Amino acid sequence: MTTADTTSIAPKAQTHNPADNTTLASNAADTTNVKADKKADALKTPAHRDQTDVRFEEDARDLHRILPASRKVYIEGSRPDIQVPMREITLDPTPVQGVSEKEWEQNPPFYVYDTSGVYTDPNVEIDLTKGLPKLREGWINERGDTEQLSGLSSAYGLARARDISTANLRFAHIDKPRRAKAGQNVTQMYYARRGIITPEMEYIAIRETQKQHELTDMRQHDGESFGANTPQIITPEFVRDEVAAGRAIIPNNINHPESEPMIIGRNFLVKINANIGNSALGSSIDEEVSKMTWATRWGADTIMDLSTGNHIHETREWLIRNSPVPIGTVPIYQALEKVDGVAEDLTWEIFRDTLIEQAEQGVDYFTIHAGVLLRYVPLTAKRLTGIVSRGGSIMAQWCLAHHKESFLYTHFEDICEIMKQYDVAFSLGDGLRPGCLQDANDEAQFGELRTLGELTKVAWEHDVQVMIEGPGHVAMNRIKENMDLQLELCADAPFYTLGPLTTDIAPGYDHITSAIGAAMIGWFGTAMLCYVTPKEHLGLPNKKDVKDGIITYKIAAHAADLAKGHPGAQARDNALSKARFEFRWDDQFNLALDPDTAREYHDETLPKDAHKSAHFCSMCGPKFCSMKITQNVREYAAGLDKEAANQKVTPQTGDLTDAGHLIKEVNTELVGQVGEATAEEIRQGMAEMTKKYNNEGRQLYKEV
Amino acid sequence: MTTADTTSIAPKAQTHNPADNTTLASNAADTTNVKADKKADALKTPAHRDQTDVRFEEDARDLHRILPASRKVYIEGSRPDIQVPMREITLDPTPVQGVSEKEWEQNPPFYVYDTSGVYTDPNVEIDLTKGLPKLREGWINERGDTEQLSGLSSAYGLARARDISTANLRFAHIDKPRRAKAGQNVTQMYYARRGIITPEMEYIAIRETQKQHELTDMRQHDGESFGANTPQIITPEFVRDEVAAGRAIIPNNINHPESEPMIIGRNFLVKINANIGNSALGSSIDEEVSKMTWATRWGADTIMDLSTGNHIHETREWLIRNSPVPIGTVPIYQALEKVDGVAEDLTWEIFRDTLIEQAEQGVDYFTIHAGVLLRYVPLTAKRLTGIVSRGGSIMAQWCLAHHKESFLYTHFEDICEIMKQYDVAFSLGDGLRPGCLQDANDEAQFGELRTLGELTKVAWEHDVQVMIEGPGHVAMNRIKENMDLQLELCADAPFYTLGPLTTDIAPGYDHITSAIGAAMIGWFGTAMLCYVTPKEHLGLPNKKDVKDGIITYKIAAHAADLAKGHPGAQARDNALSKARFEFRWDDQFNLALDPDTAREYHDETLPKDAHKSAHFCSMCGPKFCSMKITQNVREYAAGLDKEAANQKVTPQTGDLTDAGHLIKEVNTELVGQVGEATAEEIRQGMAEMTKKYNNEGRQLYKEV
Repeated sequence: MTTADTTSIAPKAQTHNPADNTTLASNAADTTNVKADKKADALKTPAHRDQTDVRFEEDARDLHRILPASRKVYIEGSRPDIQVPMREITLDPTPVQGVSEKEWEQNPPFYVYDTSGVYTDPNVEIDLTKGLPKLREGWINERGDTEQLSGLSSAYGLARARDISTANLRFAHIDKPRRAKAGQNVTQMYYARRGIITPEMEYIAIRETQKQHELTDMRQHDGESFGANTPQIITPEFVRDEVAAGRAIIPNNINHPESEPMIIGRNFLVKINANIGNSALGSSIDEEVSKMTWATRWGADTIMDLSTGNHIHETREWLIRNSPVPIGTVPIYQALEKVDGVAEDLTWEIFRDTLIEQAEQGVDYFTIHAGVLLRYVPLTAKRLTGIVSRGGSIMAQWCLAHHKESFLYTHFEDICEIMKQYDVAFSLGDGLRPGCLQDANDEAQFGELRTLGELTKVAWEHDVQVMIEGPGHVAMNRIKENMDLQLELCADAPFYTLGPLTTDIAPGYDHITSAIGAAMIGWFGTAMLCYVTPKEHLGLPNKKDVKDGIITYKIAAHAADLAKGHPGAQARDNALSKARFEFRWDDQFNLALDPDTAREYHDETLPKDAHKSAHFCSMCGPKFCSMKITQNVREYAAGLDKEAANQKVTPQTGDLTDAGHLIKEVNTELVGQVGEATAEEIRQGMAEMTKKYNNEGRQLYKEV
Repeated sequence: MTTADTTSIAPKAQTHNPADNTTLASNAADTTNVKADKKADALKTPAHRDQTDVRFEEDARDLHRILPASRKVYIEGSRPDIQVPMREITLDPTPVQGVSEKEWEQNPPFYVYDTSGVYTDPNVEIDLTKGLPKLREGWINERGDTEQLSGLSSAYGLARARDISTANLRFAHIDKPRRAKAGQNVTQMYYARRGIITPEMEYIAIRETQKQHELTDMRQHDGESFGANTPQIITPEFVRDEVAAGRAIIPNNINHPESEPMIIGRNFLVKINANIGNSALGSSIDEEVSKMTWATRWGADTIMDLSTGNHIHETREWLIRNSPVPIGTVPIYQALEKVDGVAEDLTWEIFRDTLIEQAEQGVDYFTIHAGVLLRYVPLTAKRLTGIVSRGGSIMAQWCLAHHKESFLYTHFEDICEIMKQYDVAFSLGDGLRPGCLQDANDEAQFGELRTLGELTKVAWEHDVQVMIEGPGHVAMNRIKENMDLQLELCADAPFYTLGPLTTDIAPGYDHITSAIGAAMIGWFGTAMLCYVTPKEHLGLPNKKDVKDGIITYKIAAHAADLAKGHPGAQARDNALSKARFEFRWDDQFNLALDPDTAREYHDETLPKDAHKSAHFCSMCGPKFCSMKITQNVREYAAGLDKEAANQKVTPQTGDLTDAGHLIKEVNTELVGQVGEATAEEIRQGMAEMTKKYNNEGRQLYKEV
């Protein structure tokens, strides 16, 4: 049973609340903060590394803090070591006028998908210098198809390990890597195609189902899925079938056992990726680790490390060891560094060594621009902005210089052989993606896509998992063509798109220009959206930019889920809207994608506590507010229904035109219901509330 | 001739540049600033008002500053008093390697639609205490169908004028109002239907054409217009025909002669509206005027004044006198204030007096919730969030209390009689719009829309201009239904929508949740998008929020224009993309919707001047950068073309597969072209540039 109704105590949990039968990870924010403070000191002075270059200066409160009114809970699967995390948001009751607080309508807690890892579990000791617990280690071991190597297999990895000059910033607790035993294939696709349901698949089934069967408000409109087909409850069998068909991937390298299994496919929730990565200009290992934990806290489903600065190898190790989500890279970037930036000097041997180096660190997916063929390169000649993908530029340069197809293409099957020994997934890169609207959907772009489709089938022959990268810059009316063609040419392999940006004229706001395209292409079937930050085209994102990018893309992904009609997607919208309508301000903030900002904006204008706890509209007062009016409307409508029943008339639009005689009656009733008040008292009360309304600010959330 | 190729000196222009044959309004930013500073002092101590409550504390630099590298130009129409403003952006030349700077490719100036009014014209004296020049006064007078009244016609207006307690904050230079002579109709629709082309229509034709016939790069993809039909060049006849058909409106009250004519209709550029408005909580008249000038500077096409605080009447006067764009209001808000907030006490007489009061001040369009019929009210009873429109709530309350149809509906023709005497346009309000996804597209909403369609036809019988307001909160897959139904039920009257928000779960980011919906509905045919700020649902927007809302909605509107295939819409994208590709950083900033933010973000990461003036990619250096690679590609492709011509083979995808023999040749050529450098020198240069690349930050704008 995957979505067990009974849940049990998680391995590291210390408290258990029998009332809701879920495992508690947190009771009080205070406890979390105390722990976090203690940890901060520990991180700043690690005993074993006196003169370290790696310092974690992130506010430990940030690192450990769970969002407001939230606690981490785990749902147990078919075996005790399958513990799927969710964030439970506690809601206030709905106030009912004239009824004692105890009898108010209770609002059940709300559960949301949680990418933040055990950082938000106060029962787990976090030590960034040691890395996260190895959640999947047991599952990998018990399959018996891998072996721990006696050491690193890549020449570069070995050289880095021996370099004393970087010893002080090296991650201290590196395990020896695992690899498939000779002749074995350890990909999730390999297992799926043989009918095996792995613990990873079951974990994902529970995670994707999101406790939907416990929802009390299942109201949701039909979506338009364009062929996507998501069942109401996600079973492990469904996960297996989707992976076997190539319609979804589970990126989880056996050398990244710290990661919490997740899936990318158009019949699952739309995912988002956040790019981070150092540069020699100011960013350090601890900053990148801090960006990673920050991005996953706000909802990044995967992280791409695009480092090109110093210590790429060492930075990646720190990131992987501490990342609860899959990590992707673009290996050609590091390979280029190894040949001092001279694209023509790249060789298969250097690239191969880089793949092995990174696979043994635990990278979960590789962007590989194997579709940049010689014959496509001249097709970019008349473009407005030529080739804008860095990987694409590198490969085009190589192809022109060597007048032959790239080693990524000619050695594609060799690459598959490596990938399947570690279960690294392909993210087939779109090296010829358009850099502006004018260049969108052209021959170069679609030619490459056709080749990516062919390569997908080659990878699948090796049971290697594949997703396909997509554009870029595309006007709204030309987005769907991208999705349709990708599905057709790549046989339903998951699409992973950057935006697309729907206009080129707003640098500084490209998180927004691209969120429009991202929401649309997500609706049409894209499985994962690569975020764009406000700094796109302009500079390096800081933590604020990373968060802006993440929240913007969470919006796009969720808007897509809603439009597709993903089962249960609307539940959070309903819960938040109900809270809004009932003036439960705290719940409105806490159910939001970014509770901190919602609360801060509210508090900027209005006094802090009076408004958040108001049980009626604190700006209009209890006698004139839309909630009261709707209550009146509901009573009126109930009256009409009753009358109609007596007269055997169905009250519908049009039929009600002459219902005036009813209204008078109901209206008299309404006046009675205001209680003991006389008409004059009502008038005075209203005048008073009007003053209050004027004094406390106008009711913006009701405005045109 | 409307879009005259020759332009002449504008009334107040002092310099003229014969080179481009347009009138210059500004030569140097410094001059502007000096003027502005002088003005600031003048505003702070207006001689005629010693103890004023109205102070303009806005930084005068802000008020007068034109955006970087820009100057105001005017295009003259068929008569010298038709002077249509545009903003001209000067661009740098494209550097060509090995060629002296004088011979570099020139990039022609770029012209953009300009809503900022004469604030950005240094040749116009601005005095907020006196209001803007009366641009349209002569046109109104020469029609001879209006008369200046001896005084105000509304009881409330008269009372305000006599109130000595507010004399110190009253706008000092109020003209006596104009009104149609007895029996006359002065709407633009009335003229249009009689075949008259007004100066307003000609002005709009020039403004909408945007100097497109001078564009050098007309590359643009086909759009999908869903029935919208915009000609390449907008003629005055086309404007007239669209207004006559009711497909577009020109909101310009004869008592707001300061406004620069603009048009709202789906065969024109998509427009945006910004809501402002005071509240007793902290905002003052000068703050609202400052928000208005700020919003129009960034691109607001109209402003709605939703004031509900103190001095609504006085605030509006200041706004209208100083606004270069049409002003809209929701008269029922002020009417409600007049009855101390008791909705049931509203009467036709009070509302009528309010309409006249506001029409005589110069309000250009009125939101009127005349479609909230008694029979629709019960249909909201089972909604998740009931009635969320403030106007809708007021009218529903009134209907329930009086058990009859509202005076807005029963007196609709009386309202038309008032509107046509001043040329105020209807914005028929959607009082029953949905407040959450769950309530979207329901019977209440669409029932009201049907009634708005009927009222549209009634208004048209009076030749009164009409647009229709739309939702609200709607999931992406349900947006198009709104547009299609609106066009059908309202006979192509322009649609004016709030967003719609595509998810309810992101308070604090509703500018983004709604920009997604706004871009889509704009594409489908909405003529004007009402902005949403990040503070929506949470509090009162400050200037930063106003700007965020405006830029976000400029993005949505432009993305819509592009997707519709609006003629010339892509030119700005092309110009910016070309600048980007050529590393003309300054041009990239200056062509952006928000040059200030683009520049600031760039400068945060990278040294200020070195990078902005770099003629090659300052991060990769001249030998390895995508521009150089594309240059190589272009030369290679040209070689292929030549070879193909010799062999009579067309080089297309597929045909090039075996073109390897050509590449070697071309590649050898390329190496030759690097100049005198040997292979070793090239290598060293590249290694050097790689270091530079690493030291100066990685090239984010090329990343996945």
